[in-house]
Amino acid sequence: MRGFGDTGELKEHCGVFGVFGHAEASNLTYLGLHALQHRGQEAAGIVSGDGRELFAHRAMGLVADAFDGPTLVRLAGDRAIGHVRYSTAGPSAIANAQPLVFNGIVRGPLALAHNGNLVNALELQAELEAQGAIFQSTSDSEVIGHLIARDRGGDLPDRIVSALGRVAGAYSLLFLSRDQLIGVRDPLGFRPLVVGRLRNAYVLASETCALDLIEAEYLREVEPGEMVILDQNGLTRRRFAEAERGGRCVFEHIYFARPDTELFGQSVHEVRKRLGRELGRERPAPVDVVVPVPDSGVPAAIGYAEEIGARFDLGLVRSHYVGRTFIEPQQSIRHFGVKLKLSAVRDALRGKRVAVVDDSLVRGTTSRKIVGMLRAAGAVEVHLRISAPPTLFPCYYGIDTPTKQELIASSHSEEEIARYVTADSLGYLTLDGVYRAIGRPRNDHCDACFSGDYPISAVPRESGAVPLRVIGS
Amino acid sequence: MRGFGDTGELKEHCGVFGVFGHAEASNLTYLGLHALQHRGQEAAGIVSGDGRELFAHRAMGLVADAFDGPTLVRLAGDRAIGHVRYSTAGPSAIANAQPLVFNGIVRGPLALAHNGNLVNALELQAELEAQGAIFQSTSDSEVIGHLIARDRGGDLPDRIVSALGRVAGAYSLLFLSRDQLIGVRDPLGFRPLVVGRLRNAYVLASETCALDLIEAEYLREVEPGEMVILDQNGLTRRRFAEAERGGRCVFEHIYFARPDTELFGQSVHEVRKRLGRELGRERPAPVDVVVPVPDSGVPAAIGYAEEIGARFDLGLVRSHYVGRTFIEPQQSIRHFGVKLKLSAVRDALRGKRVAVVDDSLVRGTTSRKIVGMLRAAGAVEVHLRISAPPTLFPCYYGIDTPTKQELIASSHSEEEIARYVTADSLGYLTLDGVYRAIGRPRNDHCDACFSGDYPISAVPRESGAVPLRVIGS
Amino acid sequence: MRGFGDTGELKEHCGVFGVFGHAEASNLTYLGLHALQHRGQEAAGIVSGDGRELFAHRAMGLVADAFDGPTLVRLAGDRAIGHVRYSTAGPSAIANAQPLVFNGIVRGPLALAHNGNLVNALELQAELEAQGAIFQSTSDSEVIGHLIARDRGGDLPDRIVSALGRVAGAYSLLFLSRDQLIGVRDPLGFRPLVVGRLRNAYVLASETCALDLIEAEYLREVEPGEMVILDQNGLTRRRFAEAERGGRCVFEHIYFARPDTELFGQSVHEVRKRLGRELGRERPAPVDVVVPVPDSGVPAAIGYAEEIGARFDLGLVRSHYVGRTFIEPQQSIRHFGVKLKLSAVRDALRGKRVAVVDDSLVRGTTSRKIVGMLRAAGAVEVHLRISAPPTLFPCYYGIDTPTKQELIASSHSEEEIARYVTADSLGYLTLDGVYRAIGRPRNDHCDACFSGDYPISAVPRESGAVPLRVIGS
Amino acid sequence: MRGFGDTGELKEHCGVFGVFGHAEASNLTYLGLHALQHRGQEAAGIVSGDGRELFAHRAMGLVADAFDGPTLVRLAGDRAIGHVRYSTAGPSAIANAQPLVFNGIVRGPLALAHNGNLVNALELQAELEAQGAIFQSTSDSEVIGHLIARDRGGDLPDRIVSALGRVAGAYSLLFLSRDQLIGVRDPLGFRPLVVGRLRNAYVLASETCALDLIEAEYLREVEPGEMVILDQNGLTRRRFAEAERGGRCVFEHIYFARPDTELFGQSVHEVRKRLGRELGRERPAPVDVVVPVPDSGVPAAIGYAEEIGARFDLGLVRSHYVGRTFIEPQQSIRHFGVKLKLSAVRDALRGKRVAVVDDSLVRGTTSRKIVGMLRAAGAVEVHLRISAPPTLFPCYYGIDTPTKQELIASSHSEEEIARYVTADSLGYLTLDGVYRAIGRPRNDHCDACFSGDYPISAVPRESGAVPLRVIGS
Repeated sequence: MRGFGDTGELKEHCGVFGVFGHAEASNLTYLGLHALQHRGQEAAGIVSGDGRELFAHRAMGLVADAFDGPTLVRLAGDRAIGHVRYSTAGPSAIANAQPLVFNGIVRGPLALAHNGNLVNALELQAELEAQGAIFQSTSDSEVIGHLIARDRGGDLPDRIVSALGRVAGAYSLLFLSRDQLIGVRDPLGFRPLVVGRLRNAYVLASETCALDLIEAEYLREVEPGEMVILDQNGLTRRRFAEAERGGRCVFEHIYFARPDTELFGQSVHEVRKRLGRELGRERPAPVDVVVPVPDSGVPAAIGYAEEIGARFDLGLVRSHYVGRTFIEPQQSIRHFGVKLKLSAVRDALRGKRVAVVDDSLVRGTTSRKIVGMLRAAGAVEVHLRISAPPTLFPCYYGIDTPTKQELIASSHSEEEIARYVTADSLGYLTLDGVYRAIGRPRNDHCDACFSGDYPISAVPRESGAVPLRVIGS
Repeated sequence: MRGFGDTGELKEHCGVFGVFGHAEASNLTYLGLHALQHRGQEAAGIVSGDGRELFAHRAMGLVADAFDGPTLVRLAGDRAIGHVRYSTAGPSAIANAQPLVFNGIVRGPLALAHNGNLVNALELQAELEAQGAIFQSTSDSEVIGHLIARDRGGDLPDRIVSALGRVAGAYSLLFLSRDQLIGVRDPLGFRPLVVGRLRNAYVLASETCALDLIEAEYLREVEPGEMVILDQNGLTRRRFAEAERGGRCVFEHIYFARPDTELFGQSVHEVRKRLGRELGRERPAPVDVVVPVPDSGVPAAIGYAEEIGARFDLGLVRSHYVGRTFIEPQQSIRHFGVKLKLSAVRDALRGKRVAVVDDSLVRGTTSRKIVGMLRAAGAVEVHLRISAPPTLFPCYYGIDTPTKQELIASSHSEEEIARYVTADSLGYLTLDGVYRAIGRPRNDHCDACFSGDYPISAVPRESGAVPLRVIGS
Repeated sequence: MRGFGDTGELKEHCGVFGVFGHAEASNLTYLGLHALQHRGQEAAGIVSGDGRELFAHRAMGLVADAFDGPTLVRLAGDRAIGHVRYSTAGPSAIANAQPLVFNGIVRGPLALAHNGNLVNALELQAELEAQGAIFQSTSDSEVIGHLIARDRGGDLPDRIVSALGRVAGAYSLLFLSRDQLIGVRDPLGFRPLVVGRLRNAYVLASETCALDLIEAEYLREVEPGEMVILDQNGLTRRRFAEAERGGRCVFEHIYFARPDTELFGQSVHEVRKRLGRELGRERPAPVDVVVPVPDSGVPAAIGYAEEIGARFDLGLVRSHYVGRTFIEPQQSIRHFGVKLKLSAVRDALRGKRVAVVDDSLVRGTTSRKIVGMLRAAGAVEVHLRISAPPTLFPCYYGIDTPTKQELIASSHSEEEIARYVTADSLGYLTLDGVYRAIGRPRNDHCDACFSGDYPISAVPRESGAVPLRVIGS
Repeated sequence: MRGFGDTGELKEHCGVFGVFGHAEASNLTYLGLHALQHRGQEAAGIVSGDGRELFAHRAMGLVADAFDGPTLVRLAGDRAIGHVRYSTAGPSAIANAQPLVFNGIVRGPLALAHNGNLVNALELQAELEAQGAIFQSTSDSEVIGHLIARDRGGDLPDRIVSALGRVAGAYSLLFLSRDQLIGVRDPLGFRPLVVGRLRNAYVLASETCALDLIEAEYLREVEPGEMVILDQNGLTRRRFAEAERGGRCVFEHIYFARPDTELFGQSVHEVRKRLGRELGRERPAPVDVVVPVPDSGVPAAIGYAEEIGARFDLGLVRSHYVGRTFIEPQQSIRHFGVKLKLSAVRDALRGKRVAVVDDSLVRGTTSRKIVGMLRAAGAVEVHLRISAPPTLFPCYYGIDTPTKQELIASSHSEEEIARYVTADSLGYLTLDGVYRAIGRPRNDHCDACFSGDYPISAVPRESGAVPLRVIGS
């Protein structure tokens, strides 16, 4: 939904937000989730607490649709956690919305919001079910709750640490109990998680853009392998795991994070402009004008145009009115697809040699349509430039990628893809170019989608058939 | 919702229906639940199966509102169980709708529909949570699922029997697994459960009126302490418990069951007419006309009028249009209450001595209004007759009764109550009269609400505060 | 929806209610419409006024569903009129809901609520359209508004009288302008309309049962050909037409009016019992038990049983849960129809000779199913008795009757109908018997549906094809 | 909703689309309205026809929400007209949605879709009501229907011409009757209207971007004072009025039209870039970077940056997720406003001198917030440049402008406004600069919002109080 280049086919799973110690905790969480809306648009939820009770509300849809004024008032208390997510398909989706709430754990309910993906969830679920556990959702996140419920010793942080000792994968997690708000980031730090402060309150969020909106001060990243505990004693840190390398998702830089976010210590917007410049250095094109695939391709196109010394123009216009409710007429003789989202500006393109810059190319179908639109509008040459390497491998750490067969670059050469998308030339950025733009060592990052170099050896098991179908809402 | 005498304040908890081996299993279940609608109007659900998968749909509201055509089509397969219930108050009610579905039990999901109430549910829930179980609802029925999930040995019937060995209380239960539909009735047989046959299919239902609607043949009651297993081998019976006495709910005869049902081997309509005749014998009144509180008081009023030789007339008319959505204007200077549901027919009452027959008197507030309406319409004397003994004790076995303090008869004499309801006289039926009308020994029944003689010694524990509030739907 | 005998196939079009001079005008109208709900269940509306503005709300569905608390609060002012109706089929129905509101008439908007039917509406509509009038609905009532709008002289009552001089047919009308609430009944008085008083306020209503609910005092009928004007000067009467005969609808007595209403000066309940007694005198049956088709057949069955000296019993039970949302499963192999609404009580019928009393027989299909149900429940003889003459002619004055071809009695003899409905015998009441029961002269009434004797010579023209279809809500 | 600079406070009223002679007429209209969505987001409607009947559907909301597949199927036929609009406030809005449909005009219904605004509507409505006309909406467009209905002579085109002889103001109109689709543009041509062809079908649309989406060929503008008649004879033209000057809305170029539209014979995108260049020439600023207020300010910012030789960057990011449903928390201590829609990119702004380019400045409140955001993100200087002259006068021809008092430029000097919005400098474009960028003579255009030079002498009368309030939907 965010970009309409081929990148639109990749989807982030989730965003999380939490605040402790502010009279307007649920209002702030609502605003914070709105700022994180690009990380998940299918469902939203908030659980708040006042030290005695927890209050929960989850619903399908955008944050703006999921909450109204009276609901926010009823989400009482000075602490809250929230979650936005892509839900699984089908009408049962609401059962997978988060925060999940578990009853009967350590004197009362425990709420959990998870960004990431566990690679050994199915093994653990089978083991837990064999012990009599009953699962309500098909979410890997529920495994964490059951592990905590079964653990017998210690206080809540101890039990969380013990449970996390069993799981492998990517997780930026927020927990809310009666007394504590706890944030955790996995030992490799796949997904972002930051700490901020708003007067006396502490804030945890997936991205700094959520801090900016509520005018909270950005303090620092939650470190990989670190737990942050917020309670009446203020903020306490605890290190629960060490890793020899990092797993920061390089795609957060390239596409997922919001451009105004400071991610892993870098400005996303600046990194993207540098990706464009590196791309211009590696793969210049003899063109009259550089146009981005809006909106996510804009910074890289600006950098690319500056680097090669060509004019930048907005040759493609994006409709503001395409959401998931737009349905093409069923009986129509034509398929509209990307035409409903993007349109070409004839006078900016007619008779020109055009470089079009996008941030990824997944299946190639969308790029093919975009190149066609540019040509129909009069472009005499179209050179497609991608501000990332070819996407070759699926992600197991929280991005919804197609299977390897569907990733066009895994079975076709650059020339073949250029022919398929009908471009005069196609140029990807190299992985080296990516790290030059990021300006931090490769060892801190996960680039498995480009390299196949998975930082965790385990690979998710395929689920067996799911034999229960919930019908209707 | 059913009657509008004081009985309207007592609510049955649930009705269940199941069918195995019929191509239209979910359609039949939908119709069967419609026939059982008087047993629960707040939520309805069906789980069907085709031998491979289960399909589930639950929703708030009447059966007619909860299901539509496409939903029934998607509830595929030749077997199904369904449930109607009164839900607990509040927006989280849908989580308590049934059938409940448990994943991961004995090769796949298990659905459960429960009519009745367990008296040791809270103790068992605390014990299970201490072992790491996570409860999703506040329903006592969920305890049964967790007990089955934790049991390790044997096939599904064995595990159900083992789990039921832990619970005490009233239960008519239906289970649906991938392969089997199992019906169970508790050892005392508090709630009804019957078996029927429709060509090659077997049917289980709370009442025979559900068999009549779908033109199934009534075979017999499921016996107290009996399990009925329906699978590819046909119908198998299994006796899992014996009891020295019965606990058949006497109030099913007096009020809950539908008049066209054959309950515990008797015609409900005939029993109710006989209750009226016994009442006429014990407590005649010198009146010109006998009027029922419609609709449930009609048969007893007919019997009473015949016995005392007075004319029967419909002096009170019931509105067909009062449902739970009718809201009295908030700013109104008057309270309308029962006037919105019942109205008096002036010319049937004016100048007459009237006996008004109802089937119970709980708090007395409704009876007071009815007597007032009859007098306002011109009745010169009003004699209130109740076709049951005074309600003195709460029910722990599946009827939603007020607390003892709210039961007016537990603290007031017949004369005091007559004065409160402004009747010229008040007459209850004796417990002996009830059993004469029923025509079966008292030892087969539970009449604890009248006698305080509870067939099970355990009494439900009060729940602690529930600290999670789910907001919105 | 009210009865489930064959009478269920006849539908009243509307009910009206108005109040002037009460601080809770819209609340009282809401309650009054609820009491008149049996006269129309498809749509409801209220227009209120405070002397300066009018406030309007109309919606599909029952009164209880159409209004909520905030809406009633916003219907401000001390005067209001309301309407319940059967809407025409199709999604455009809301445009036909009433009260209609016309702008630009005599210093501000004018609201109109109509019970009845005009026989020259299509002629007038064609004439008005030829003069440039634009119609928004397909309701005959809109014609009245256009006639008033075009009239140039005099005050509002004058203009209404002038407009009514053009129309022929049945109308009990309420108008609300900024200053006045006006009630009008057509010169023959087809439909009822009564005046009541609630302290200083005046009330106009279709039936007295609406006065009873709000505890207003019944003053008298609005006379045929009379206009009642309520404004700051209190109540003013005006006679605008005289007629040599009356046209009071005899079917209001037999079926439509609520039993607790005093209609045309008579108790509906008592008239119906007398209809049953006359039927017993004219057409006795050698039976063991008399059962009504509930609910509307009950009083006649009581009278019939008393007259022939047989026992009365409730051998058919009516479901409280069948509304217009209940949809039979589409793929079902059987058609359930009346079985979903009525069920037979086996033990009240088995081995007995049964007289079943209903208030009309229109197409015969429902009666046939009821007789079948009684036999299936064990009745050895079934004698069908109808407390009215055969329905032979369509109604043009506000009742939705089938065409003449569909009226079984218009083409079949009593014996043929008895055979068709599989009854051992069939007996109608004579028209003379009807008037003996009513106790007033035939010349005051319209019995055209039985006699073909239409009090107005004009017959409605058939509409041409309606060329506009409004899709969706 | 389109831009988030101050221009967001100006709202276009409507867009229209029609097609004649294509089997998928309603599908194409649905797509065409989607392409015109920026011209009105509050309501949408389509009326189609098959030569015998018309089919209508109107609903509140975006095109994507207002129509679904089954509705489009039911909008049958080979011709259709559609409309998107801003509705008036309040729940009665649906009554003002278009196309309006009038019954009883020239053998059947007539549908009408209107973009523009009449200046003598209230006078005409009063005159028509005095003649007995009844108005259903508060839309000026309804006047046109009544005028046509009252006209007696000639065929439909004649009657339309005759009716238009009475009205003054701006109108691009589409009519659909049983036989004809007629497009009309007012004599001064305030609003755009173009003709296109799709194989054998003709298309009429507000903007060419709607033709592009459905791949129709753009033929030409409908001329001011021209009527285009589409029927079985193909396309017929008729000139019904001449004017000495034109009234093409200059603000369509500056802000309203979509950048990929060819408007009044010019590319909107190119005109906007030229507006930026003229602005750079007239009002250069000594800056490091030029940033647009996205999205509508982008082309002018590109032109401005090119002209002054500074770097272009996307220093403000626009949220994709703000629609009209987003509600700020009511109890919040802060007001978020534009911060929910726009966010500043710190690293693109920090330490830089910034020119920010927007396309209008209406009240100044939004500009003030944007300047504040840029400074908070680290900009050391902020120079606000507006690619249009100061907005000084209200529009009477179809744009929803604030009153003169609310237009900050009508009472404050450039310096005062600069101070108010806290900019280091403020620079508007001159009217001469606008026309240099447009490249066509001023006499063809209306620039009354800048100059007060209204091409029509009449000024709309204020409406009296509207005395009817419709409550609820």
